[in-house]
Amino acid sequence: MLDKNIIANLQQISGKEQVLTDKADLICYSYDATQKQYLPDVVVHPGSVEEISQIMKLASENKIPVFPRGAGTGFTGGSVPTAGGVVLGLTRLDKILEIDEENLVATIEPGVVTEDFQKTVEKLGLFYPPDPASLKVSTMGGNVAECAGGPRCVKYGVTKDYIIGLEIVTPTGDIIKTGGSTMKGVVGYDLTKLICGSEGTLAVITKIIVKLLPKPEAKKTMLVMFDSIDGAAQGVSDIIRNKIIPTTLEFMDGRTIDCVRQATDLQVPNDARALLIIEVDGDLEFLAKQVERIAEITRPLGVVETRIAETPAESEALWQIRRSVSASLRNVNPDKFNEDICVPRSKVPEMIRKIEAIADKYQIPIVNYGHAGDGNIHVNIMVNGKISGDHEKAEKAVVEVFEGALELGGTMSGEHGVGIMKAPFIDMELSTNVVDYMKTIKRALDPNNILNPGKIFPSDR
Amino acid sequence: MLDKNIIANLQQISGKEQVLTDKADLICYSYDATQKQYLPDVVVHPGSVEEISQIMKLASENKIPVFPRGAGTGFTGGSVPTAGGVVLGLTRLDKILEIDEENLVATIEPGVVTEDFQKTVEKLGLFYPPDPASLKVSTMGGNVAECAGGPRCVKYGVTKDYIIGLEIVTPTGDIIKTGGSTMKGVVGYDLTKLICGSEGTLAVITKIIVKLLPKPEAKKTMLVMFDSIDGAAQGVSDIIRNKIIPTTLEFMDGRTIDCVRQATDLQVPNDARALLIIEVDGDLEFLAKQVERIAEITRPLGVVETRIAETPAESEALWQIRRSVSASLRNVNPDKFNEDICVPRSKVPEMIRKIEAIADKYQIPIVNYGHAGDGNIHVNIMVNGKISGDHEKAEKAVVEVFEGALELGGTMSGEHGVGIMKAPFIDMELSTNVVDYMKTIKRALDPNNILNPGKIFPSDR
Repeated sequence: MLDKNIIANLQQISGKEQVLTDKADLICYSYDATQKQYLPDVVVHPGSVEEISQIMKLASENKIPVFPRGAGTGFTGGSVPTAGGVVLGLTRLDKILEIDEENLVATIEPGVVTEDFQKTVEKLGLFYPPDPASLKVSTMGGNVAECAGGPRCVKYGVTKDYIIGLEIVTPTGDIIKTGGSTMKGVVGYDLTKLICGSEGTLAVITKIIVKLLPKPEAKKTMLVMFDSIDGAAQGVSDIIRNKIIPTTLEFMDGRTIDCVRQATDLQVPNDARALLIIEVDGDLEFLAKQVERIAEITRPLGVVETRIAETPAESEALWQIRRSVSASLRNVNPDKFNEDICVPRSKVPEMIRKIEAIADKYQIPIVNYGHAGDGNIHVNIMVNGKISGDHEKAEKAVVEVFEGALELGGTMSGEHGVGIMKAPFIDMELSTNVVDYMKTIKRALDPNNILNPGKIFPSDR
Repeated sequence: MLDKNIIANLQQISGKEQVLTDKADLICYSYDATQKQYLPDVVVHPGSVEEISQIMKLASENKIPVFPRGAGTGFTGGSVPTAGGVVLGLTRLDKILEIDEENLVATIEPGVVTEDFQKTVEKLGLFYPPDPASLKVSTMGGNVAECAGGPRCVKYGVTKDYIIGLEIVTPTGDIIKTGGSTMKGVVGYDLTKLICGSEGTLAVITKIIVKLLPKPEAKKTMLVMFDSIDGAAQGVSDIIRNKIIPTTLEFMDGRTIDCVRQATDLQVPNDARALLIIEVDGDLEFLAKQVERIAEITRPLGVVETRIAETPAESEALWQIRRSVSASLRNVNPDKFNEDICVPRSKVPEMIRKIEAIADKYQIPIVNYGHAGDGNIHVNIMVNGKISGDHEKAEKAVVEVFEGALELGGTMSGEHGVGIMKAPFIDMELSTNVVDYMKTIKRALDPNNILNPGKIFPSDR
């Protein structure tokens, strides 16, 4: 429990009404999408960078852990307060401060909701591509801290690729500006990219400078169904080899299709064992040609059926198939372990076969979908919490999935991060000296280990 | 001077013939493109990462400075041995280890020459976009250490955007792998991007994993001459606002055109006071349309003449104008200060006007050209070393150029880095606490300050 003086100090800094200590309130800030629950001692919602600086100084002097939090939509526990202390809610810093249409740069606060930001810039004919599934709720600060991805990353890259500057508060309370508003800049170390993806362990993000693109003129969606995952994977490679980089190259494996077919009235032929949802964007006239070319390229690869959307409504219907996955999976089993391994694109079929073998071994359903263009597979291990032993089996299966990805030159996480969920496994992927190198940075910048402690690194080291 | 035992140890590690101590040899490794000269005690050319690890351990134990070096083409003294010690020449590590055509990823050693790498991947229909002017000589290791840019960066981004993994040797001799071969990966801190652009101060780069693109089908070049720099700058903004991102958007100001006209038989109308060399790439059919559209967009902006290359030879002729700049400037004055400020794109005309005022104030010619699409201006202060006081005037002018760029929200360096040339000025751009934050990282990772000391940070702090 925190000293009463600390609470009083926080109230003095941010105002009484911004400091929550009632248990009912604290519970609301005790979990994220992992459903792991840890109660903080206090939640504070500062209204300015100066307040955040004061809070960090207070925490630093008193060695109190601080857990920065956006919307709490993370999949790895990045924002959960694992050691009591202070949850630093950043949702009051929710202003889009500037959109520089001339230079295609925006400056925003961390609490801006990703989709709100996207819609605002799109009204001006501009475009912010990263599109994590949580975008209706998640905040840009959280997106930066986790380096969020999404379907469009195959063409446009991840969050990090759009962040050119930051204002941050250090664990000791300094306010620092990194990067800037220019398209290039090489004065000193790239602190912006170091902070991006550091999961709130190195700094509190208080301002974000974002690079924008002109909004593509038009887009076109198509659905290609294959009789095997190999055909779909070959299709991905062949499309790219033909110099077409689609905006999205989403895939669903046979088990995912089965789940969706069970739960919805989806009309998919029985022999479709994998499908790709492909979207291209750019010049309207050119798109029709690209879609034709993709149909031609994929045709010899065991295609069962190709649907090309001719209207926005038809495009929406195709995307609906992808969007119905999550609910369909819940219909099969209410609980699931949702992993997000990433392998070299060409290794996707081999990875899927490895996963199928793991599913057979543990007799637990595993369904796979995700971003085939990046080799980023969302592996869903379908746990039934009511079946005794199911959870333990799933935990073993997860480790084997990680092993399989690493054997293929892949990674445990393409976009969800490490947080607390993967921290115990980080040594499987990173050698001891890499982890030590990272911890050296963490120790140097957060000497009291108060900022989001217990994340990324295994706690026993 | 180094202890004889150290030389013997180096000979033992890399072989006698790879260790140079003759003064005539040392001189060859004492400078880079800045022409600042510092003699090292010894030059060693290791042949493997294991040797580099041993050399760093030896240097670490004996607190001997080590200066990693590629081709020594840098413009800010990044590789010069400012404190004696060991020059670590990396040119023997010159293998392209793997080109994974399926996944568009290559693994190379740091001594590979940039253009050789580009040509090799282009033969396979692949594309590595960054194109620093030094590319015929400079090495990929140096490009990564400095985060090199080039004309094509306006569309394709800088070196950093293509580096997805590294093998490095730390100042204490550990061999570490960062990142990997996947398109996404968020396990731990992004050490890859931290090392990239850190100017050899944090690690020796021994292996580079590079992301490639499919080679664009075709390209088309055009030259647009304007009666004012404002017209050219407006052209850049209007082209991008019309959703066209050209491969290059190079500009030359009026004074640069005058220099080129004096030195060559360049046929440019007298009323052309700025020009843009624009290249677009992609689908052949689409390019003709884009070029037409660019001509249309720029027409109302005071265009004096537009030339569209119809053949590769005509395209080459247009690029020849840009390539003749360097020699033409030497013709005016043999010495020059070559700066590379970067401002928000829309501020280019204001920056050029500031620079013209500085040139008038100090009565010293300043010519400007560069990457208008990024706002990255190569400011050439034309010093005549034979005129007494010219050098001092130029030094004052440089500071005012930096001030001007910073006032407009810009940076001192878009692609050349800080090295020793800009280290004394870094405080103009970065606040004390940012510099301290960077130095905290440097101290933590290089506790003995032996790796490329004296670079980036002012020596008096």
